[in-house]
Amino acid sequence: MTPPETPADGASNADTLGSVGEGAVLERIFPRLPGAASALIGPGDDAAVVAAPDGRFVVTTDLMVHGPDFRLAWSTPVELGLKAAASNLADVAAMGAVPTALVVAIAAPSNTPVSTLELIADGLREGCESLAPGCGVVGGDLSVSATLTIAVTAFGDLEGRDPVLRSGARVGDTVAVSGALGRSLRGLELLFTRGVDAAGEPDAAATAELRREHPDLLAAHLAPTPPIADGPLAAESGVTAMLDVSDGLALDAARIARASGVGIDLESALLGDDPDAAIAGGEDHSLLATFPDGAALPGGFRRIGTVVEAQAEHGPRVTVDGATPARSGWDPYAGWDGAAG
Amino acid sequence: MTPPETPADGASNADTLGSVGEGAVLERIFPRLPGAASALIGPGDDAAVVAAPDGRFVVTTDLMVHGPDFRLAWSTPVELGLKAAASNLADVAAMGAVPTALVVAIAAPSNTPVSTLELIADGLREGCESLAPGCGVVGGDLSVSATLTIAVTAFGDLEGRDPVLRSGARVGDTVAVSGALGRSLRGLELLFTRGVDAAGEPDAAATAELRREHPDLLAAHLAPTPPIADGPLAAESGVTAMLDVSDGLALDAARIARASGVGIDLESALLGDDPDAAIAGGEDHSLLATFPDGAALPGGFRRIGTVVEAQAEHGPRVTVDGATPARSGWDPYAGWDGAAG
Repeated sequence: MTPPETPADGASNADTLGSVGEGAVLERIFPRLPGAASALIGPGDDAAVVAAPDGRFVVTTDLMVHGPDFRLAWSTPVELGLKAAASNLADVAAMGAVPTALVVAIAAPSNTPVSTLELIADGLREGCESLAPGCGVVGGDLSVSATLTIAVTAFGDLEGRDPVLRSGARVGDTVAVSGALGRSLRGLELLFTRGVDAAGEPDAAATAELRREHPDLLAAHLAPTPPIADGPLAAESGVTAMLDVSDGLALDAARIARASGVGIDLESALLGDDPDAAIAGGEDHSLLATFPDGAALPGGFRRIGTVVEAQAEHGPRVTVDGATPARSGWDPYAGWDGAAG
Repeated sequence: MTPPETPADGASNADTLGSVGEGAVLERIFPRLPGAASALIGPGDDAAVVAAPDGRFVVTTDLMVHGPDFRLAWSTPVELGLKAAASNLADVAAMGAVPTALVVAIAAPSNTPVSTLELIADGLREGCESLAPGCGVVGGDLSVSATLTIAVTAFGDLEGRDPVLRSGARVGDTVAVSGALGRSLRGLELLFTRGVDAAGEPDAAATAELRREHPDLLAAHLAPTPPIADGPLAAESGVTAMLDVSDGLALDAARIARASGVGIDLESALLGDDPDAAIAGGEDHSLLATFPDGAALPGGFRRIGTVVEAQAEHGPRVTVDGATPARSGWDPYAGWDGAAG
């Protein structure tokens, strides 16, 4: 993605959503959005028409809100678009579906530079092109709001397969993951501890310094690249349950365990160089799945544990090396009150 | 719709989104949401699976933001849910499709009472049940934000028909509308002039008084009831172009005219008791359509004008009684800067 050095004819870097107006902003954004191979009728009418060759479609929706979900002092607009695409594509992939289309609604303060919205569009395009080629944006909405908010709804095609649910794990299954574990959390911890000013507020200058020192960990949080293609691949390979790791491995594994009526035991030796971060970390949007014992693991999946009998009532759903994990999650935004920041 | 007088077991009227947490709020909201006949897999997994028997689906998305799109001093939460459903269902109907499902994402300040979210859910249910029976909510998201924001994405099934676009109007076609014209604008004008306090700020007490005096006009703006079933009916009756009146009859008619390369002449005598409001008014979400000359108009459609030759370059796309309308639209929020209010 190479953003233009200079604005298009008649456009100015000083243009804002409020000064230019919704219609003109949309005209500048549309050409930058990824096209969708599935679009039968694209933007421009009251609604789009999307192909669903399977006779069904998979749909997920997600809001990203300035404050609890991202900070402009930390994320670039391109990263916001990338993450909005990646997190929704991962939900589609976790059902075993191939992502086909997105609709994107953005609400932004009227003094938001049009270039910010153009760069968010670039991030959406880059995310779709790199993670789910053929998937694109078929419609959207643009509004004014005091709080920058990005609402993405993503669609997928199951290609005739059964959807992969959380409830299919069986005792003895292999627990496997494709994608990073804990790296997004480590990036976020860096931002919270060192991407801030003396008062503890998110700070762009401190973040720029941090980016030079830890580019990979920051990218893992700000623009994750989940293994989207491994979702449909797992569905073709006998996967019994799957979801994407959005709220933390321990929490998300417990969701599979609860839905399936089983327990899950993870092996710390299989969780990389920082098992604690792997267990607590969310927002990697990696795919967590269970496969029948002995099955060859497809794509990038690697074994991290085993499906076990559910423990007695009130016992932990998820254990690590047979014991309750010391750290099951970290929510730096807990108690955040919705004020700007 | 009768909201419970007392909260459910263990719930309290003092509960807020922040005090109860997302999971518990969702548990209280889900039972109040309308179920969808099209849902193959509903909420609870990473994504829903929706039937698309036609092999295509229609999709539209829309953000409602506190401030520019609604004010809590004017709208009840039930009305917010109703309007969020109605405005999106109208976009689906305007394509000639039958609404099948919605996904709904809400971002709200953490001090928002859970009861507010429950009542928004009640409004969504009431809207679906009354306007598009069988359509329901198949998924969603809940976030914290400084600005109450409701993002709805709606789906529809074309039942094998071609989608109805804006581009199909032909010279000589009858221009017709189903649903109210200008009543939402008249309600909004009342709110802006009399639903405010001495400082001109939206005021709940003044609005309560206004509701007693003009219940129908306020309802027309705060909880419109567009004729959803007339969309598919028009599609079965030879309609050549259609959209829903969201930004004003003159502006929306001009969209059909531009897309079709024609002009549209409206007849003031056919525009009801307040033709100026009818011409300028948006947000009625009525269906504006063109039909071949002489065709029997289906459902609630009534004739309001004729498709004519496009005028010379720079001539008006839409005329009233052959002349440029005096008032083409009124945007009371124009220049609104995104501050709370």
